[in-house]
Amino acid sequence: MSQSKGTVVLAYSGGLDTSCILVWLKEQGYDVVVFLANIGQNEDFEEARKKAETLGAKKIFIEDLRKEFVEEFIWPAVQANAIYEDRYLLGTSIARPCIARRQVDIAKQEGAQYISHGATGKGNDQIRFELTCYALYPGVKIIAPWRMPEFYQRFQGRKDLMEYAKKHGIAVPVTPKDPWSMDANLMHISYESGILENPKNHPPKSIYQMTKDPETSPNIPDMLELEFKRGVPVQVISLTDRTSAQSPLDIFTFLNHIGSKHGVGRVDIVENRFIGMKSRGIYETPGGTILRQAHLDIEAFTLDREVRKIKQSLAVQFSEQIYNGFWYSPECDFVRHCITRSQENVEGKVQLSVFKGTITILGRESPKSLYNEMLVSMDILGDYDPCDASGFIKISAVRLKEFHRLQKMADLKQ
Amino acid sequence: MSQSKGTVVLAYSGGLDTSCILVWLKEQGYDVVVFLANIGQNEDFEEARKKAETLGAKKIFIEDLRKEFVEEFIWPAVQANAIYEDRYLLGTSIARPCIARRQVDIAKQEGAQYISHGATGKGNDQIRFELTCYALYPGVKIIAPWRMPEFYQRFQGRKDLMEYAKKHGIAVPVTPKDPWSMDANLMHISYESGILENPKNHPPKSIYQMTKDPETSPNIPDMLELEFKRGVPVQVISLTDRTSAQSPLDIFTFLNHIGSKHGVGRVDIVENRFIGMKSRGIYETPGGTILRQAHLDIEAFTLDREVRKIKQSLAVQFSEQIYNGFWYSPECDFVRHCITRSQENVEGKVQLSVFKGTITILGRESPKSLYNEMLVSMDILGDYDPCDASGFIKISAVRLKEFHRLQKMADLKQ
Amino acid sequence: MSQSKGTVVLAYSGGLDTSCILVWLKEQGYDVVVFLANIGQNEDFEEARKKAETLGAKKIFIEDLRKEFVEEFIWPAVQANAIYEDRYLLGTSIARPCIARRQVDIAKQEGAQYISHGATGKGNDQIRFELTCYALYPGVKIIAPWRMPEFYQRFQGRKDLMEYAKKHGIAVPVTPKDPWSMDANLMHISYESGILENPKNHPPKSIYQMTKDPETSPNIPDMLELEFKRGVPVQVISLTDRTSAQSPLDIFTFLNHIGSKHGVGRVDIVENRFIGMKSRGIYETPGGTILRQAHLDIEAFTLDREVRKIKQSLAVQFSEQIYNGFWYSPECDFVRHCITRSQENVEGKVQLSVFKGTITILGRESPKSLYNEMLVSMDILGDYDPCDASGFIKISAVRLKEFHRLQKMADLKQ
Amino acid sequence: MSQSKGTVVLAYSGGLDTSCILVWLKEQGYDVVVFLANIGQNEDFEEARKKAETLGAKKIFIEDLRKEFVEEFIWPAVQANAIYEDRYLLGTSIARPCIARRQVDIAKQEGAQYISHGATGKGNDQIRFELTCYALYPGVKIIAPWRMPEFYQRFQGRKDLMEYAKKHGIAVPVTPKDPWSMDANLMHISYESGILENPKNHPPKSIYQMTKDPETSPNIPDMLELEFKRGVPVQVISLTDRTSAQSPLDIFTFLNHIGSKHGVGRVDIVENRFIGMKSRGIYETPGGTILRQAHLDIEAFTLDREVRKIKQSLAVQFSEQIYNGFWYSPECDFVRHCITRSQENVEGKVQLSVFKGTITILGRESPKSLYNEMLVSMDILGDYDPCDASGFIKISAVRLKEFHRLQKMADLKQ
Repeated sequence: MSQSKGTVVLAYSGGLDTSCILVWLKEQGYDVVVFLANIGQNEDFEEARKKAETLGAKKIFIEDLRKEFVEEFIWPAVQANAIYEDRYLLGTSIARPCIARRQVDIAKQEGAQYISHGATGKGNDQIRFELTCYALYPGVKIIAPWRMPEFYQRFQGRKDLMEYAKKHGIAVPVTPKDPWSMDANLMHISYESGILENPKNHPPKSIYQMTKDPETSPNIPDMLELEFKRGVPVQVISLTDRTSAQSPLDIFTFLNHIGSKHGVGRVDIVENRFIGMKSRGIYETPGGTILRQAHLDIEAFTLDREVRKIKQSLAVQFSEQIYNGFWYSPECDFVRHCITRSQENVEGKVQLSVFKGTITILGRESPKSLYNEMLVSMDILGDYDPCDASGFIKISAVRLKEFHRLQKMADLKQ
Repeated sequence: MSQSKGTVVLAYSGGLDTSCILVWLKEQGYDVVVFLANIGQNEDFEEARKKAETLGAKKIFIEDLRKEFVEEFIWPAVQANAIYEDRYLLGTSIARPCIARRQVDIAKQEGAQYISHGATGKGNDQIRFELTCYALYPGVKIIAPWRMPEFYQRFQGRKDLMEYAKKHGIAVPVTPKDPWSMDANLMHISYESGILENPKNHPPKSIYQMTKDPETSPNIPDMLELEFKRGVPVQVISLTDRTSAQSPLDIFTFLNHIGSKHGVGRVDIVENRFIGMKSRGIYETPGGTILRQAHLDIEAFTLDREVRKIKQSLAVQFSEQIYNGFWYSPECDFVRHCITRSQENVEGKVQLSVFKGTITILGRESPKSLYNEMLVSMDILGDYDPCDASGFIKISAVRLKEFHRLQKMADLKQ
Repeated sequence: MSQSKGTVVLAYSGGLDTSCILVWLKEQGYDVVVFLANIGQNEDFEEARKKAETLGAKKIFIEDLRKEFVEEFIWPAVQANAIYEDRYLLGTSIARPCIARRQVDIAKQEGAQYISHGATGKGNDQIRFELTCYALYPGVKIIAPWRMPEFYQRFQGRKDLMEYAKKHGIAVPVTPKDPWSMDANLMHISYESGILENPKNHPPKSIYQMTKDPETSPNIPDMLELEFKRGVPVQVISLTDRTSAQSPLDIFTFLNHIGSKHGVGRVDIVENRFIGMKSRGIYETPGGTILRQAHLDIEAFTLDREVRKIKQSLAVQFSEQIYNGFWYSPECDFVRHCITRSQENVEGKVQLSVFKGTITILGRESPKSLYNEMLVSMDILGDYDPCDASGFIKISAVRLKEFHRLQKMADLKQ
Repeated sequence: MSQSKGTVVLAYSGGLDTSCILVWLKEQGYDVVVFLANIGQNEDFEEARKKAETLGAKKIFIEDLRKEFVEEFIWPAVQANAIYEDRYLLGTSIARPCIARRQVDIAKQEGAQYISHGATGKGNDQIRFELTCYALYPGVKIIAPWRMPEFYQRFQGRKDLMEYAKKHGIAVPVTPKDPWSMDANLMHISYESGILENPKNHPPKSIYQMTKDPETSPNIPDMLELEFKRGVPVQVISLTDRTSAQSPLDIFTFLNHIGSKHGVGRVDIVENRFIGMKSRGIYETPGGTILRQAHLDIEAFTLDREVRKIKQSLAVQFSEQIYNGFWYSPECDFVRHCITRSQENVEGKVQLSVFKGTITILGRESPKSLYNEMLVSMDILGDYDPCDASGFIKISAVRLKEFHRLQKMADLKQ
């Protein structure tokens, strides 16, 4: 028997693609350790374990990363109001470094020099995976079958994979594949490819798995109170039924439940991938969308105007770093640190209602707000002297008058 | 009889405040020309004219600025996706320069050296008004009664105004004033002050005048197709009933109607005023909210990624300039020009549905899109060589590996 | 005898202006505490003390703030490479908060409700002074005589001040005033006004007091080695004569000496004041200019590219905050914190020569550099596979090709 | 005889490397068209032509691109004050797209599908070359021998090239190669590699070819007057000898001469390459350095403060785009357009002296300046009311006082 080429840790989903990759890697002479992260996707993990065993995985790691996913990845994104190109809440982007970090740990622990994944060669995920691997384990070698001609030329369509699966005793899915692909985790589900590739096509109503259709969602809103400390939620209470949650994972699950029930967080966008092409994606981010609105509100209430502005511009950069796969990078480290610092006083409670896809902020309070009711009141002058505003405006106009002078001179010359 | 101190052009609303100011200015010895701009607010302009006549206005200008408001102010804001502090669509901010510009024209035409308004001394509007005036008419003198001790000490509350009104034959409102103040135009209505000053207070359901409550709005969505050229809408068609609109004012009115019907565009925020205090405002921007979503979509579809990013950062600055009153400034001129340039290829059609406060993008098409279905397709390799991605990722990782090397060295030293 | 209006702490220089202000404030009924900060200006402090005593100061504080000026104000500016409008090193701007902070302490300690200064009404310094005061002592009242009609109308020129001085026993300068004004401290001397107000006028050669004229400066360069830790210098050694300095104040004085000797750091600029007018200023910043060049070099050597870029943009904002007087503000606090964080690895030695106004970097080394000689070498491939660059370039070109496709389509249509 | 693989246009320098590449390409079966651009480097073009003929080039293009290099590439960089990482004036970066654009034209005209160059696989130039090619000629195929194992493994050092040259009748250089590499054009000479790879090594004094050593340069300054229109120089006059130049190429050559004579524009830096590694480079940019200083001055004099700030941030992005090779990209197009727009009023004359590496601005004047001597004067109040500054400062302090209130509250709680 030929000698092993070494050990590879494969990011495994239990699906057709990565099952075939598992077998194919063995065929190529590798020992295959499989790693399946539970980051909240709907999956039969026990079934996946059995399948991997059957297919000859040398070792199987199935681990629940949901807690660290929320605390170390979703929370910083909430603090930043992270959003890519104004609309995408980065649900997949922040999951990748979470998974790949653990995969690297396993690779080091198992003495594996290789890491493999089933991401395609046109997408963002390959980059997010691999940059995390290279950043944390610079000596690692990546095996990305969908970028290797010997693999992608052999498996040119799903039919080839099915045949290979049958031949190698890989259980094949009995239900036909949806005419799109999806990626799910605690934060969101994304849909792309297939019939969605024509950006004009309306997505079928049946596509959404994580949120109710607003047209059939409840006719009565839910009202919530979200409490923040240092820019992250520390409690959510339903003002409707007084249920509540306190731990990060519980809070996020609670918000997902409410958002899901009321059809919150669906978006259909065309976005720019890091590799330079435009792609169309549909996302459902129920809890994340509620959190974003609530955080924006408490942040505006507690942050100084100028700090907010600087922080916002850092957050635009942060979002792009995340999207492009640079979670583990010096710049993302730096920006995360700065954003965390900005959140020290972001504390207080926001009340809101959720109804038919719409989140409505109702009110907010904070022990650390820079809001000053006495100062802003139209009925009280307080410490404020309106005459000062005249000076403020006149000084602000100095530049404008100079510019007018110049323009008039130019007009006269013509 | 004493000689006139000169002519003042007063921005007049027909309400109690500016009616009293009209009389008070006459009392101070000015000839008062009143100017009332129709920018889409719900107002009995004829009634206002009569009132001004009765109160002794020397001349009365009531002008319909709606067309130029849409074309010269709302449209550039749409091109920019202008938004202040992530949530406010600037409905009042862009109306001020539109009104003040015309007021300056009238002042020049009437040989008036003075301009007056009824804006308060704590707000943003005084600044927007006056910066426009100083920018376009540097020699003008502003009379801002609410910043003059002789006025604001005399009129310390609504009661004082009412008494003054009665004494001077000014018709007083018969209905009691709402416990908040509001400002309305074609683009939005804003509510602030009074009971809203406590940021914790939920606004009463009855406050909203421009949009239906989503809880009682229709149970059937409306579907629209919006067509853009050079970043501005050139047509809207209802896919539900095939009605349509083509001129700027008609399109905006059409969208307002749909947005209003479905409860779109309500926000409740705490924002940072230019003068440095936080204030709470509630806004309804039905048509503007639909337009923003549609424009974001067609823009993402047609603009290059990097151009979009630079334009977005210009738009953040543009929005702040508008909010702070610098529409007529060298920097706003410059940024407007740049943004307009960025919109040359922003062309195409967006289909969307509007329902219970939620806008859902359904699909888009464009003759000028940078979207390339062949390139992005998961089923076609096309011109794209997946191997290139390996090189791209490895080169992108060079920096990350170097950083890891440095960190490891640091760890070893400790 | 009439009762005192209270105590005022006056920022006192010992010169004609603030001596007159001292007496005038007493005339107005205040008890006057004078404060004279030694921030490195060339001044006879003992003489100034006697003068203030003679003029009836209630209490006199003359304090050496040079150490804290260097450590708490100049060092953060060095870390940031702080520069305003590409050319001004902010020597006056960072001195103001240093002085005003101590002045506020004295006011609080002396129970003084008033603070006064001799800054003019058109300049930046009034703002820097007063914003610091308001930020640290919100209840303070500022007395700025040069903005009070009763003062500036009385003292319309130097002649009026001289007469007033003679009348009140204030010693008047025997030498005629230079036809410009200047401000000096450890970091720089600035010159403005008078004959410099015409921006076309060349400054007289005799104007410079802090630096030698390069035309007559030594014909032999000095070579230095500057060592940095956490972005600030910790040692300077002359490679020419082996003299050295280690403490912050000594290092800065050392660099001032070398820079001065070789005519380093003169600039003649037109800048934009915060109040909106352009002004012409001439600055000499010998040590600061050397430090900036050295810091830029060691920073580029040790900082990751992307971190550098983000930090640079923060530094642009920091510089503007400083210039505008917002050293003590939430945003400047925040940005300072971020910049400090960025400097953790900015460590190493830079060798340079100084000669006739020119600083030449000669070489640098660092235990924490991200520079990798093996990686960059043209003679060694090392870990680097040149083929990766092909993929990197091709992927980077994806967008460009798409744009070309669109343009070609547009061309065909025309 | 075997059939040709097709035609390749080779960027040819006449040196050892590209001569060997020429022959090697023929060996591989290509028809080789050589292209040698005169962008101001010191080269015997006739000699190079003969050499290429001898080596069997199918066709030879030697073209003088100096005029378009100045007008279309250097001038926009001057308008932008383009600079990479605070110190590098981009002399090589802007030459690449100028050369590659013409090379693409030739390729299209000659029906060549291939383009080849001699740039190394670790540098920036390969990227700048190829991105330009892909942007302007998406279907082109690049042959980059230094990234092809069959080439770089065969030619592992200069010795291999020399042997190959001898074998194939390629004239070999008789003088030994400098222990560094250099790249020269009208704008600058750069030096890197070899003994410069150790960033601690001082460069030998003899390295500089374009500028005199300041230690031996003339002891008398030259004084110049530079006149700008729309942000570009339209005339330079020597105030010393009254010589002058008016056309772009003449002006730039004139400034190069003066800068060169006085040792202006040497920098020694460590910079960050696009591919992620740090490299050390030494640059001489005599004329460009003078122009930058003069342009900064006239720009500050004529541009509104806020426009300047926005333009500066665009220029940072422009500089990075240029450095990274994206001259021909949608974003660089866009930014160039915006920057050009900003320069409309950048007009006037700057007087300066050049001496021993130092440029000293002496004065400036402009028919379009926003500088207002009356407004800024310390002796004239003019239209300016100093009292306004009090209001301006107090309103600017509103935020700071609120922040103080919050901090005090926090302190009390502890």
